Amino acid sequence: MMPDEPVQSSGEDAAVRREREEGTTPDLDFGKLGGLMTAVAQDARSGEVLMVAFMSPASLAATRETGFAHYYSRSRDCIWKKGESSGNLQSVEEILVDCDQDALLLRVRQHGVACHTERFSCFYRRLETDEESGREQLVFRAAPQHDPKQGSHKPGA
Amino acid sequence: MMPDEPVQSSGEDAAVRREREEGTTPDLDFGKLGGLMTAVAQDARSGEVLMVAFMSPASLAATRETGFAHYYSRSRDCIWKKGESSGNLQSVEEILVDCDQDALLLRVRQHGVACHTERFSCFYRRLETDEESGREQLVFRAAPQHDPKQGSHKPGA
Repeated sequence: MMPDEPVQSSGEDAAVRREREEGTTPDLDFGKLGGLMTAVAQDARSGEVLMVAFMSPASLAATRETGFAHYYSRSRDCIWKKGESSGNLQSVEEILVDCDQDALLLRVRQHGVACHTERFSCFYRRLETDEESGREQLVFRAAPQHDPKQGSHKPGA
Repeated sequence: MMPDEPVQSSGEDAAVRREREEGTTPDLDFGKLGGLMTAVAQDARSGEVLMVAFMSPASLAATRETGFAHYYSRSRDCIWKKGESSGNLQSVEEILVDCDQDALLLRVRQHGVACHTERFSCFYRRLETDEESGREQLVFRAAPQHDPKQGSHKPGA
């Protein structure tokens, strides 16, 4: 998660680090975020980054067993299956691990939309500075997609 | 960050939430990670997800002022300019904000490679189950790229 920080470690630390970075045995680091890892979901077809969430060891296991993304809700303190109520499931094609094994990238096939606001991705606004006023603003770059099956907005689904 | 959790909130909470999700005034939430936001960097040309890191308000300000990605190192407790020593800078083309404003997506032009291991992306391994042994393993999907200017591996640069 700190891709080009200077490395200043003892010989043993360097060996552990090298194994973590260059090894083939998973040594996932759930310790930095109190038992969770950051998980980024990316639509495998479009390449669009869909959302950022957390995974616990159990939610990762559920994801691997079922093939559908499960995350961990810190606010509700439980595993949640993405799209369980809305049908907006994520079929997981690949799970990638970063260099220091504290972040995951799920390459998924997104069914419907990823965001509960009905946008395909949760990243539907751009942070900009308004040239006239100099103020910061959010500019929309994607509109809600209404589900033709539903015919209406379905909040929080 | 919890894209399809059920919404069960009072009228006022719902109004605050709606403003955060549908508003145009930034209300970035650095509170959930103790003063930091998760920041994902994506190469704007290839769509490849490069890395996951953290940003503090000051590192975000430095990024916007300079146009180059600055992150926050929790281990070193300071801002770092990505690629400052290696030259592997990230020119930031867009900064996107997610629905609940607790994660950022930087769309960047990556100079050189993003990962200190000399891979273009930090996500160079896939988590898989070995079919024969049933054991979990990491499978490499990208090889280090050696810098023709340097002619050799440059660790931690």
